[in-house]
Amino acid sequence: MGRAQKVVLAYSGGVDTTVCIPYLRQEWGVEEVITLAVDVGQGVSLATAELAETETRRQQELEAIRTKALAAGATVSLVKDVRAEFVRDYALPAIQANALYEGRYPLSTALARPLIAQLLVAVAEEYGADGVAHGCTGKGNDQVRFDVSIAALNPQLKVLAPAREWGMSREQTMAYGERFGLTFPVKKSSPYSIDSNLLGQSIEAGPLEDPWFEPPEEIYTLTQSVTQAPDQPEYVTVEFRQGQPVGLNGENLAAVTLVEQLNVLAGRHGVGRIDMIENRLVGIKSREIYEVPGLLVLITAHQALESMTLTRDVSHYKRGIEETYAQLVYNGLWFSPLKAALDAFIQQTQERVTGSVRLRLFKGTAVVVGRQSPDSLYDPNLATYTEADQFDHRAAEGFIYVWGLPVRVWSQVGQRLP
Amino acid sequence: MGRAQKVVLAYSGGVDTTVCIPYLRQEWGVEEVITLAVDVGQGVSLATAELAETETRRQQELEAIRTKALAAGATVSLVKDVRAEFVRDYALPAIQANALYEGRYPLSTALARPLIAQLLVAVAEEYGADGVAHGCTGKGNDQVRFDVSIAALNPQLKVLAPAREWGMSREQTMAYGERFGLTFPVKKSSPYSIDSNLLGQSIEAGPLEDPWFEPPEEIYTLTQSVTQAPDQPEYVTVEFRQGQPVGLNGENLAAVTLVEQLNVLAGRHGVGRIDMIENRLVGIKSREIYEVPGLLVLITAHQALESMTLTRDVSHYKRGIEETYAQLVYNGLWFSPLKAALDAFIQQTQERVTGSVRLRLFKGTAVVVGRQSPDSLYDPNLATYTEADQFDHRAAEGFIYVWGLPVRVWSQVGQRLP
Amino acid sequence: MGRAQKVVLAYSGGVDTTVCIPYLRQEWGVEEVITLAVDVGQGVSLATAELAETETRRQQELEAIRTKALAAGATVSLVKDVRAEFVRDYALPAIQANALYEGRYPLSTALARPLIAQLLVAVAEEYGADGVAHGCTGKGNDQVRFDVSIAALNPQLKVLAPAREWGMSREQTMAYGERFGLTFPVKKSSPYSIDSNLLGQSIEAGPLEDPWFEPPEEIYTLTQSVTQAPDQPEYVTVEFRQGQPVGLNGENLAAVTLVEQLNVLAGRHGVGRIDMIENRLVGIKSREIYEVPGLLVLITAHQALESMTLTRDVSHYKRGIEETYAQLVYNGLWFSPLKAALDAFIQQTQERVTGSVRLRLFKGTAVVVGRQSPDSLYDPNLATYTEADQFDHRAAEGFIYVWGLPVRVWSQVGQRLP
Amino acid sequence: MGRAQKVVLAYSGGVDTTVCIPYLRQEWGVEEVITLAVDVGQGVSLATAELAETETRRQQELEAIRTKALAAGATVSLVKDVRAEFVRDYALPAIQANALYEGRYPLSTALARPLIAQLLVAVAEEYGADGVAHGCTGKGNDQVRFDVSIAALNPQLKVLAPAREWGMSREQTMAYGERFGLTFPVKKSSPYSIDSNLLGQSIEAGPLEDPWFEPPEEIYTLTQSVTQAPDQPEYVTVEFRQGQPVGLNGENLAAVTLVEQLNVLAGRHGVGRIDMIENRLVGIKSREIYEVPGLLVLITAHQALESMTLTRDVSHYKRGIEETYAQLVYNGLWFSPLKAALDAFIQQTQERVTGSVRLRLFKGTAVVVGRQSPDSLYDPNLATYTEADQFDHRAAEGFIYVWGLPVRVWSQVGQRLP
Repeated sequence: MGRAQKVVLAYSGGVDTTVCIPYLRQEWGVEEVITLAVDVGQGVSLATAELAETETRRQQELEAIRTKALAAGATVSLVKDVRAEFVRDYALPAIQANALYEGRYPLSTALARPLIAQLLVAVAEEYGADGVAHGCTGKGNDQVRFDVSIAALNPQLKVLAPAREWGMSREQTMAYGERFGLTFPVKKSSPYSIDSNLLGQSIEAGPLEDPWFEPPEEIYTLTQSVTQAPDQPEYVTVEFRQGQPVGLNGENLAAVTLVEQLNVLAGRHGVGRIDMIENRLVGIKSREIYEVPGLLVLITAHQALESMTLTRDVSHYKRGIEETYAQLVYNGLWFSPLKAALDAFIQQTQERVTGSVRLRLFKGTAVVVGRQSPDSLYDPNLATYTEADQFDHRAAEGFIYVWGLPVRVWSQVGQRLP
Repeated sequence: MGRAQKVVLAYSGGVDTTVCIPYLRQEWGVEEVITLAVDVGQGVSLATAELAETETRRQQELEAIRTKALAAGATVSLVKDVRAEFVRDYALPAIQANALYEGRYPLSTALARPLIAQLLVAVAEEYGADGVAHGCTGKGNDQVRFDVSIAALNPQLKVLAPAREWGMSREQTMAYGERFGLTFPVKKSSPYSIDSNLLGQSIEAGPLEDPWFEPPEEIYTLTQSVTQAPDQPEYVTVEFRQGQPVGLNGENLAAVTLVEQLNVLAGRHGVGRIDMIENRLVGIKSREIYEVPGLLVLITAHQALESMTLTRDVSHYKRGIEETYAQLVYNGLWFSPLKAALDAFIQQTQERVTGSVRLRLFKGTAVVVGRQSPDSLYDPNLATYTEADQFDHRAAEGFIYVWGLPVRVWSQVGQRLP
Repeated sequence: MGRAQKVVLAYSGGVDTTVCIPYLRQEWGVEEVITLAVDVGQGVSLATAELAETETRRQQELEAIRTKALAAGATVSLVKDVRAEFVRDYALPAIQANALYEGRYPLSTALARPLIAQLLVAVAEEYGADGVAHGCTGKGNDQVRFDVSIAALNPQLKVLAPAREWGMSREQTMAYGERFGLTFPVKKSSPYSIDSNLLGQSIEAGPLEDPWFEPPEEIYTLTQSVTQAPDQPEYVTVEFRQGQPVGLNGENLAAVTLVEQLNVLAGRHGVGRIDMIENRLVGIKSREIYEVPGLLVLITAHQALESMTLTRDVSHYKRGIEETYAQLVYNGLWFSPLKAALDAFIQQTQERVTGSVRLRLFKGTAVVVGRQSPDSLYDPNLATYTEADQFDHRAAEGFIYVWGLPVRVWSQVGQRLP
Repeated sequence: MGRAQKVVLAYSGGVDTTVCIPYLRQEWGVEEVITLAVDVGQGVSLATAELAETETRRQQELEAIRTKALAAGATVSLVKDVRAEFVRDYALPAIQANALYEGRYPLSTALARPLIAQLLVAVAEEYGADGVAHGCTGKGNDQVRFDVSIAALNPQLKVLAPAREWGMSREQTMAYGERFGLTFPVKKSSPYSIDSNLLGQSIEAGPLEDPWFEPPEEIYTLTQSVTQAPDQPEYVTVEFRQGQPVGLNGENLAAVTLVEQLNVLAGRHGVGRIDMIENRLVGIKSREIYEVPGLLVLITAHQALESMTLTRDVSHYKRGIEETYAQLVYNGLWFSPLKAALDAFIQQTQERVTGSVRLRLFKGTAVVVGRQSPDSLYDPNLATYTEADQFDHRAAEGFIYVWGLPVRVWSQVGQRLP
């Protein structure tokens, strides 16, 4: 008897997940493999994003993927465009959370995983499958994100991860596939491992494994190099309502469109590159390059608006919540009760995060140069040094007396003063 | 009887602290005013920093300040160059703490205050004074930093803050001074309030009080505008030993020299400008502009080196410590038992933060492009996807089982599964 | 012109607030004083609680207070019984938060202050008053709780605190009142300062100011001494629904009744005494005695139920939230955006905190001896050492490999191992 | 070739570790097994502790264990009395940390594990062994504590855990041993799993796996039942120097003696029982009973002394440090860089934690009734309501203005007030 009878496989069209189809059937006794290809906006570059035929090309690529799975032995091959859900349910909450793992990585890849897991489970339940499968290997974060999300959503489903166990090199994997009639296009092999979606791309491996090695220009496809970026700054205004971006330069936009447009705007000015050493959940450090032009601009703008509309204590406390939020998402705990409680905290704080932020995009930088809000707590009449000053100056002395009292007593005791 | 008999006044040579001298004597019955002018490296600009005569000019300015105090009625007028102590005892620990108030402001001004307070107390004890005085007004952070630091160091000293109480406008202040023979040079009055030292400058007030107003180029003196910055990137390597910067581009440098050189290098490329709304201790928000070229590069480099040499748990926990550290320093609690305990934590973590970080300075950005360390915890043989891989892949499954178990049980219970 | 025209005064019937009535009118030019006496369940003792006539006596006391205010010059004298609101809106959320200031004090007094402030503001708005007043002095926490709550609810109302400014000793205060025809019963003067309500009482001052002095039995009125407590333990079962206590020993009870009954049950066994040195908001330490029998039992039981129904990460993270929650309430920030965000977090976690907790009350202790829940995450089949064990033992090795990997690498690097 | 050639086994004299000796040799090809029995004060009960011959009996038991290992095939059988190191290097720092896992469990068992690991490594290095072994199974915390501590101390040593892998029931284990000539005394089999040392004992399993089941009196050996406890309270004074207990009732005592005496004193009054559901590191909840009379009294007293000698900010911040400290120790990370950094923080805070705490032991409770310190920050002249009052009352108003300003502005903006 096989490990599972009917399995829904997360399918990308690449070598690994394609080989998974015969492998699951031949080696692990799965009777039926249903593939699910999820469109989260991958495969776009700064170059193509500006072209008119983007949408058509996307449709063709998805259709090719769909067909490929059937050819490899899938019983059913599904394709789902979930870009709207991806932005609405995953990216926007993360922006409200200013979610940056280790202070830097805006979780572009990590946010897509629980969505794909959610779809796998939904399809499995719809088709009566008893298992789901993915193509992750045993050293990354994505396997954790898949496995734990699936356990959270339907703990009775079996999770199969052939590539984590098969121990085949890339060449062996292709050879295995060829035994079952699969053919793989001869591609100029890239030394890099890349994952991309609407929010950006993650690049790792190859020469980047040397942390002293400067990333070469060629790896970047969503952002212009600073050298090539325009010599004139460009200003962009982002409008927020209750912590969610709703418009660009005065125009209301659907969230997907807003992110896509901002990707192009910011990418053109070389904004959104990240080069870091990060701590993976599985206990190792890895060197990662990210390109996240629009997402980074949105978080920067959101932070600036919060600096104007949140009280100090909320703002300071939320920083800790944000750290934990980012760690949970990074660590695969999107569907977990702690994540839900952090969400409740964050949602409560966003009530008045409404207003506009103006940024200057220029030579790799996105600098906030203005912010305004109907709910601004910045009160020029309190802050001013002019005669409009409304701050009660005499209060300062009393405040400082109380504020400094513990230190004063501490010092007196230490010096054995009466 | 006056508020104090003999008072040591923190003296800058400006209008306010100069008027304090007669004011303390005439209005508050102080018999003797000793002035102390502290050189923490203020008054340098990117333009002057590159000129040979910087040091001579500095000496002349300090001598002018010294004379001015005597002319205004000071009994003793002291000038102290404490740049070396400033960097060694205040800036370097803050770099080890990656201290950024509200995630952004590296505390350039805040760090100088406890040092000045320390010197005021030392001079007061040396000269047998019963009070110290400063020229802060009642709405800023600096008054708190002075008052609390002094209480911590010598709780028996009286602290006098004439400008917090006198309620005079600038014109009235000058008129008051003129009654006592003081003259003030007719200066093109700046709408901005500026504080500067070796680590950078803080700029506020005037048109900047409108948070939608983009800061004009004219306010910046330590950093080149991106438009004018060189069209070629410049690489710089910073060497650290146990978390402290000790060299630039392979050359060992004294800390003051290192900061000065890096200010020029980074400033020339437009690096180090910050525009933010921050929360002051006294409960109000203010809009602040900072120029901190060298300091910001050092913190950026230090963070990158830590990402390679600290374990994940230390790294994540230290982020919370850093936040609190920055808040304590911002809030005037440099000399406090909590600060001492945070210092002990931080020092312990720096033992192996040794190595080099290479950055590209270009058009307003300082990007880390390489890092190396004899104590690196980044292990390419664990991280690699090549055959050199030493990670135990089978461990992943066991790990994920345990990692996901609480969520799995949570889900089973929620779905009332057996 | 007076400080305010029409003022609503928080009225207790005691010397200070009675004297406030003529004082506000004579010294501060207030034209009309409306008094508001709030019944939050004060004045009950273990001895009286068991008597049948409790309710009648309470009515008589409130009526006496009402009349007294009018006699002292109040235009309108209001009395409000808000015990139900007090428990429902203040005590129950605090129980869900396991709110213990500095790990010990369950905030019995602190919780009543924002409620009284809320009522003051509501009455002021109803009667068109331009100010509210309270009788707090300048060194405690309650003044902050009143002032800040009122500012949060209606920042345009003036807050008058005569006793904070008048500088009169108790004798002087009474003498002042007598000038306006007030008479004060000759009471055996107690050296202690006491505040009480339905949740318990706070006792301070007098000989208790010596922290080496053991509190005498006489100060306790809600709890039996351990020596006198019954020689047989008594068991009580508390039922919770979504984190709120809803029943005792199988009987559904209204919240006020539940707290009252539990006060008697626990008090009889000497449960609920606290003796601590705490840090007041205004920078000083004070020695406080609390008697909080029912409230403490409810928090103890609630914690035990949470240990069974919350996941580890929620449980650990909530501890930090609880600390901050207790500090906010203690520090007068009940009505603040951070408090609201913490509430949202906490509410989200309580969804499944449903079940029963059995405690043994005996000789000053309330020990949890059993807990059960339909939502229990405690799975005996995972925890067991018997053959029913469902835990995947082989997973442990993989887990430990990953868990220990950072420390292993740290050690290898430190020992310069290959 | 075996898993290791020469192995040092942590040896208790019980069935499992005795069977490990032949098992390691026969099944895993180990050539030489060296056993190490560590005396951390286990095996004492309240009944025996008061008897004169305790020490003699202890020696006899250790000798019996030593011989048993040799009989089972050990090449070398070592016994080490490390009670002094255990208290000095493990218990005292934990007391300074007020280390209570999940707010309750004082880590009595967890603290012994890293010490035993340290000794295993030291013996392995001394004897040139290439591996160490322990008898833990795969579901508890102790396996993690051993494995990770060993990896931290000597990452080149192999760790062998036969009982984690052998999958034998208790009967099968004994049968296996009998094949190699081992005999096991017919003991009345206890349904409970017990670990004990100088600091207390941990009891689990059997009927305790039902969390609604009240622990029976028979499981307790270190503490008297409340019913049997003396009818008179007993007072004890604990003296601390820099956070470490150094004396009892005025008599200076070595740390081991102090703990032993306090165990008897507190145990006799029924103090120190804990019944809780806790979260194990491996993702499951378990129900645990602890008896920790002396340790709990020491932590209670230490907390009370800190409440008098630490400033509020240190005290509040340290609570978070303490939580993390307890989690690290519980989770096996005693030897880790984060633990070292927390230690540095804690040590820094203990400088002035010097003084005496008086407690009343009575009927299961240990209540602090007095505390005094030469470094007390409790200042009766600030706290008092008498005329000795030195607190600046007028400061309160200024303080409250500043303290409440953010909430006031928040409210004004929310109500759209001018």
